[in-house]
Amino acid sequence: MELLRTLSQVVNRLRSSCIRRRVAVVCPNDPHTEYVIIRSLREEIAEFLLVIDSAHKDMAYQLRGASPDFVRIYEASTPDEAAALAVELVRTGEADILMKGLINTDNLLRAVLKKEVGLLPPGGVLSHVAVAQVPLYHKLLLFSDAAVIPRPTLEQFRAMVSCDVALCRELGNEQPRIALIHCSEKVNEKFPHTLSYVHLKEEALQGRFGKVFIDGPMDAKTACDRHSGEIKGLSSPVVGNADVLIFPNIEAGNTFYKTLSLFGDANMAGMLTGTIAPVVVPSRSDSGNSKFYSLVLACLAGNLNQDTL
Amino acid sequence: MELLRTLSQVVNRLRSSCIRRRVAVVCPNDPHTEYVIIRSLREEIAEFLLVIDSAHKDMAYQLRGASPDFVRIYEASTPDEAAALAVELVRTGEADILMKGLINTDNLLRAVLKKEVGLLPPGGVLSHVAVAQVPLYHKLLLFSDAAVIPRPTLEQFRAMVSCDVALCRELGNEQPRIALIHCSEKVNEKFPHTLSYVHLKEEALQGRFGKVFIDGPMDAKTACDRHSGEIKGLSSPVVGNADVLIFPNIEAGNTFYKTLSLFGDANMAGMLTGTIAPVVVPSRSDSGNSKFYSLVLACLAGNLNQDTL
Repeated sequence: MELLRTLSQVVNRLRSSCIRRRVAVVCPNDPHTEYVIIRSLREEIAEFLLVIDSAHKDMAYQLRGASPDFVRIYEASTPDEAAALAVELVRTGEADILMKGLINTDNLLRAVLKKEVGLLPPGGVLSHVAVAQVPLYHKLLLFSDAAVIPRPTLEQFRAMVSCDVALCRELGNEQPRIALIHCSEKVNEKFPHTLSYVHLKEEALQGRFGKVFIDGPMDAKTACDRHSGEIKGLSSPVVGNADVLIFPNIEAGNTFYKTLSLFGDANMAGMLTGTIAPVVVPSRSDSGNSKFYSLVLACLAGNLNQDTL
Repeated sequence: MELLRTLSQVVNRLRSSCIRRRVAVVCPNDPHTEYVIIRSLREEIAEFLLVIDSAHKDMAYQLRGASPDFVRIYEASTPDEAAALAVELVRTGEADILMKGLINTDNLLRAVLKKEVGLLPPGGVLSHVAVAQVPLYHKLLLFSDAAVIPRPTLEQFRAMVSCDVALCRELGNEQPRIALIHCSEKVNEKFPHTLSYVHLKEEALQGRFGKVFIDGPMDAKTACDRHSGEIKGLSSPVVGNADVLIFPNIEAGNTFYKTLSLFGDANMAGMLTGTIAPVVVPSRSDSGNSKFYSLVLACLAGNLNQDTL
């Protein structure tokens, strides 16, 4: 499978596969969500199950006019009930992806995480993966976790690596290069994540993550800039050529996301993983492009989560 | 005083002031350090006290040829002794700035932090401040701490804010806008730094930091992009227009530094503060430009630390 190097190439791959993912949208009543739906319909990559709460029955005219082959409308009385119904549509296999519209993220996540009737399987680890297309990098860059896990434990780091590796393979990358991020190359017990990194590298050698290169701790520049690695005398298949960055905490991951998107002029895509189906929860400040690409990413992942976790 | 918006403007300000700072350099025996020294001599912003260890006596030919009015050479037997001598030159007032050459950072810091004969006054807080000149931002952006303090306490946050405010004033900014960075706007006891932020805001209102605007928690994009703030319904003198970002931990600060420098095509400058004189410790992977601008920044700060701390 050819390696996908841009988000546009991901869209083309989805189009050429002729598979339209079925997306359950909770409260699709804001302009950004409508934009994503209309663009996805035009690109022919998805069909939609729109769950509308009673306060917004009269909205979404444009969507109500769409072909019933590709847009079905469900009604619920409140946003919380809309969330519960959309989750149910995913659980029963009628939808492949869950997407957030005009509902508070906490409320949506409550439905997603609800025991027995939610989307997180027993023992599952909810995490966030983002994909950045940065003008000053030569390929797509995946990273975790910018949004969900504050201080990853070893188990959570494992889940993050597994999800990111599975997504790399969907992007046509058979042997992803994973950088474990810290502010220096030193393993130091004052920074417990660096001890987790040592474990992850050992487990990778034992084959836990399949065919991968993994290295760290190293800083974000060393991971993505060969010259920085050379100056430091570092050389590995990862240094300067990372496909995946694993961040030590949510503040570092979130800072990377926000800095790339604002100052790196990057297109970003992101989704939640660990659930039985991808969950798309765009950040309010994401651009329309980023929101569309987040759904594109989820469509690529498809039922990945069910297959691999 | 006119607001300085670029690092070149800082160089011009230094030139026009006709004050040459006296810089003690520990082991100036690598090409990057030589480059910084030669460029600073050409720009007429500094003069140098070069402390050379015995293994490198024959190096630095170019520097040995410089005018003895602006370059004096001192000899020490080992790099550690060179560090001790350079620190002594600062302590006795013969030099205004300490700069690292070809010596391990840990060894240099050991001399800087040595009790009674080092550069950190009793009760002083060593921290790092960086200044970024980013093509996609409309002014210089200061931030702390990318390099020294792992998990700032309230006292350390206070010192970081004080140093950054003092540096803003040197840049001609009379009322700096300070953003306290987190991944969301929520104050949450699970994230102790957000509780420190509440204290800092109260103290700022009581006048602790002089004339400033301070706000947070907020993410790095909200701090620097007005549009992101508007979407979130946030409005304050800081949102979208920050002069200073205070990061919650070293991994987030370091990630910001490295991401801006690599993907934001930024020129960076950085130095240590809290000491009785600025200490310039360039990162190995910094560009020649960044290393020069770091010295420029230290020259601007001059004896700031002695005046304000």
